[in-house]
Amino acid sequence: MRKINKILVANRGEISLRVMRTAREMGIKTVAVYSEADRNALHVRYADEAVCLGPAPSAQSYLLGDKIIEVCKELNVDAIHPGYGFLSENAQFAKKVTDAGLIFIGPSPEAIEVMGSKLAAKQAVSKYDIPMVPGTEEAIDDIPEAKKTAAEIGYPILIKASAGGGGKGMRVVENEEEFEEQMQRAISEAVSAFGDGAVFIEKFITSPRHIEIQVLGDQLGNVVHLFERECSVQRRHQKVIEEAPSAVITEEKRQAMGEAAIGVAKACNYYGAGTVEFIVDENLNFYFLEMNTRLQVEHPVTELITGIDLVKEQIHIAEGQPISFQQDELKINGHSVEVRVYAEDPKNNFLPDIGKLITYKRPQGPGIRVDDGFEQGMDIPIYYDPMIAKLVTHGETREKAIERMVRAIDEYQITGIETTLPFCKFVLQHQAFTSGDFDTKFVEKHFSPEILDEEFTSEEQKILAAAGVFLLEQQKPKHQIAESGTGSVTSNWKNRLKHG
Amino acid sequence: MRKINKILVANRGEISLRVMRTAREMGIKTVAVYSEADRNALHVRYADEAVCLGPAPSAQSYLLGDKIIEVCKELNVDAIHPGYGFLSENAQFAKKVTDAGLIFIGPSPEAIEVMGSKLAAKQAVSKYDIPMVPGTEEAIDDIPEAKKTAAEIGYPILIKASAGGGGKGMRVVENEEEFEEQMQRAISEAVSAFGDGAVFIEKFITSPRHIEIQVLGDQLGNVVHLFERECSVQRRHQKVIEEAPSAVITEEKRQAMGEAAIGVAKACNYYGAGTVEFIVDENLNFYFLEMNTRLQVEHPVTELITGIDLVKEQIHIAEGQPISFQQDELKINGHSVEVRVYAEDPKNNFLPDIGKLITYKRPQGPGIRVDDGFEQGMDIPIYYDPMIAKLVTHGETREKAIERMVRAIDEYQITGIETTLPFCKFVLQHQAFTSGDFDTKFVEKHFSPEILDEEFTSEEQKILAAAGVFLLEQQKPKHQIAESGTGSVTSNWKNRLKHG
Repeated sequence: MRKINKILVANRGEISLRVMRTAREMGIKTVAVYSEADRNALHVRYADEAVCLGPAPSAQSYLLGDKIIEVCKELNVDAIHPGYGFLSENAQFAKKVTDAGLIFIGPSPEAIEVMGSKLAAKQAVSKYDIPMVPGTEEAIDDIPEAKKTAAEIGYPILIKASAGGGGKGMRVVENEEEFEEQMQRAISEAVSAFGDGAVFIEKFITSPRHIEIQVLGDQLGNVVHLFERECSVQRRHQKVIEEAPSAVITEEKRQAMGEAAIGVAKACNYYGAGTVEFIVDENLNFYFLEMNTRLQVEHPVTELITGIDLVKEQIHIAEGQPISFQQDELKINGHSVEVRVYAEDPKNNFLPDIGKLITYKRPQGPGIRVDDGFEQGMDIPIYYDPMIAKLVTHGETREKAIERMVRAIDEYQITGIETTLPFCKFVLQHQAFTSGDFDTKFVEKHFSPEILDEEFTSEEQKILAAAGVFLLEQQKPKHQIAESGTGSVTSNWKNRLKHG
Repeated sequence: MRKINKILVANRGEISLRVMRTAREMGIKTVAVYSEADRNALHVRYADEAVCLGPAPSAQSYLLGDKIIEVCKELNVDAIHPGYGFLSENAQFAKKVTDAGLIFIGPSPEAIEVMGSKLAAKQAVSKYDIPMVPGTEEAIDDIPEAKKTAAEIGYPILIKASAGGGGKGMRVVENEEEFEEQMQRAISEAVSAFGDGAVFIEKFITSPRHIEIQVLGDQLGNVVHLFERECSVQRRHQKVIEEAPSAVITEEKRQAMGEAAIGVAKACNYYGAGTVEFIVDENLNFYFLEMNTRLQVEHPVTELITGIDLVKEQIHIAEGQPISFQQDELKINGHSVEVRVYAEDPKNNFLPDIGKLITYKRPQGPGIRVDDGFEQGMDIPIYYDPMIAKLVTHGETREKAIERMVRAIDEYQITGIETTLPFCKFVLQHQAFTSGDFDTKFVEKHFSPEILDEEFTSEEQKILAAAGVFLLEQQKPKHQIAESGTGSVTSNWKNRLKHG
């Protein structure tokens, strides 16, 4: 047990602020680090102390682990919180931090290392009963043998080149009749591409969902799970919308996945907050993908349905304290949805749209949380991930949380740049999303920029029309009903202002 | 069952916005009304339509019931939400609304009327087993008889003039020995003040707490309660800080109070959202005070611990739908605290400090909700209640919710006017508050403006010191650690900016 009195957050933007807010609630002093591009950032202003690390490129600032450790020593910092990204999953950095006599708010370097390697992770969890995507353990080139294996796994199956990459030598086989022909093609493709005809065979998940389990472990060996997060709505493997709980996971399945996740954590003596990712098929069979050994971008949805402050737990665990609750005390309370708001133009192939936030007004009211690192008038730097905010809602049901999110998106006022808010609204209102019947292919299946154009043509007309009313209205006092009949003035916030 | 498609909110400021946000989530159109002073208010901008009622004084705008009903007819409004204050507890208005074929989002005019009169309320609930402060039913002037009654009630007792008011003829008697002398004095005071020597005798609650129960009733006769709110921290009978649940109410007591509150609601065939107020003594005996037949200012703390949207329930109930949940489905989830932020100077006898919000930046992050009706640059009009915001926090425990509130107060940036935020922070950090051992006399017992001066002298010094650093810092690029040794810059947000 070692009390933490001062934390350095080795990160920037919203996650840096998010960590510091909890630190402040715990009476812990905070140190921010920043690059020259982030000189005026909110995380710098919020901290008790702030230190510039160097020029904008991360390699010259946020990734300078040794320099960050040096700062800690000079400022009597007790512990480093790495946030996500940057140095958060760098086992070597975690070890250096510990070697310097500082506390790393995260798991042991060994756990980071094991889970950072697919092979090592697979080996580590092999003692536990963790479901993996069924497939051959070793490369194979004998067709009859392969056919037997494929029959055992069950169709559809995926054949992929042992030496492969980039989809070369990769074949989906729907049934046994096709197998021999496809396998021969895969082998010859593999030979011509890599000079090696050996292939792996594994189960092909037709309609995969990405569902992950939040876990917490302490240094006394306790591990609990905090239910699942559904992160299937992705664009180019980037999560777009997350929610908790999942619309499709049953209580029984939740418990099974939770236990599997706890098994994965125990396999590497995990402590701190971590996330075990699974791929889930249309029959809700789940298979271990990987473990992220850090706080997740989408952690707020878990906080909103459990009432647990994950950063507070991380800090307590790093001090050597036990997790503050027992598994059976945890309950799912309502439903939470998060959308990631990016400075990207969804009508223009999601190209980053960097610039000044001329208008920036956050939505408010019941059940809304905005985690961001910007305010009106600020520039969004080009050097980093263009995520400007995480907009999170909570409601007593999934339907209510979604309705609230649509309301919140309409209420968000951003001008000066294009954002992904209209794209998020499109997804949230799509029947496939509201029904819960979707997978990781949602965006490629249902979205094209033209849809947004159609959607927003009438909207834009309304905006223009309203702007006309608004300008007119600004020039004269609003008429009173007694004078003018109805006295009604179109003053829809949404219509007046462009929002994202 | 009659579907509501358009609601007029007969109110202003934060509560008008709060109601409209839920309406929007439900797909219901909204109409705002406003006075000339509120021309640029947020609630006007947020609504789909907005109508000016007249000049600033409420009697010429927000209280013009007939005009509001006229607006509803012209704009095809289905229902009126009265918010709190203004017309919300005006039975005659509620009746006119209904007579005009509109839906009043609130209880029946009869329920408003009964609960609006202490005597009628007392009579109505007499059939139910509702505890009342023990005392004489009728005025008394016979000393031996009075003494017998006092002994039955138990000391300390309160003697008050039947014809009284303003504390005249009011006496607290600690024990039987004092009784005769004090009763004689009370009678002679009453005779000389009112020409009538008759007095009432009732139990004197030495250390009273104000605890209220939120109830919901529907038009099918179902009534549920949503637990208690502790509202004992008051200044001149004005609630200052509210929380849910109470720090002292046991599960057993909660159930007893909940049942009593349901009894009160049933006594007047109540439907809609209502609040039954109790006075609670140091032994947790509770006595019925009155029922408020509307949404309460402090309703968010109940929403945060139950996950129920009270406005949504109100609207559904007004449509004729049943309450959306059963009593036994409700659970208390964590703890919630609300502080009312007033444009008043706590160092100057809480005089209103009206002006422009030069800086106005709301706190953010996990577990925080701000309900307000202002934004940066706006003027606070002098015509209305000077409450500028309700700052509400939620945490897994009372301690966490309070820590979070202190953090949120520090993060709130308001310049241009003085606010009650420093006063609220003083209360939240006072041992009597954190221990839960307080009553309605908290403020007079523990607060004086000098305390705030002392508290803030060192704080102000820090602000000035930080301002110096800040100005200096603005003139040169922030130094890097490699160049300047520690490289540390004091940049505490709290220290840099004046916050309320």
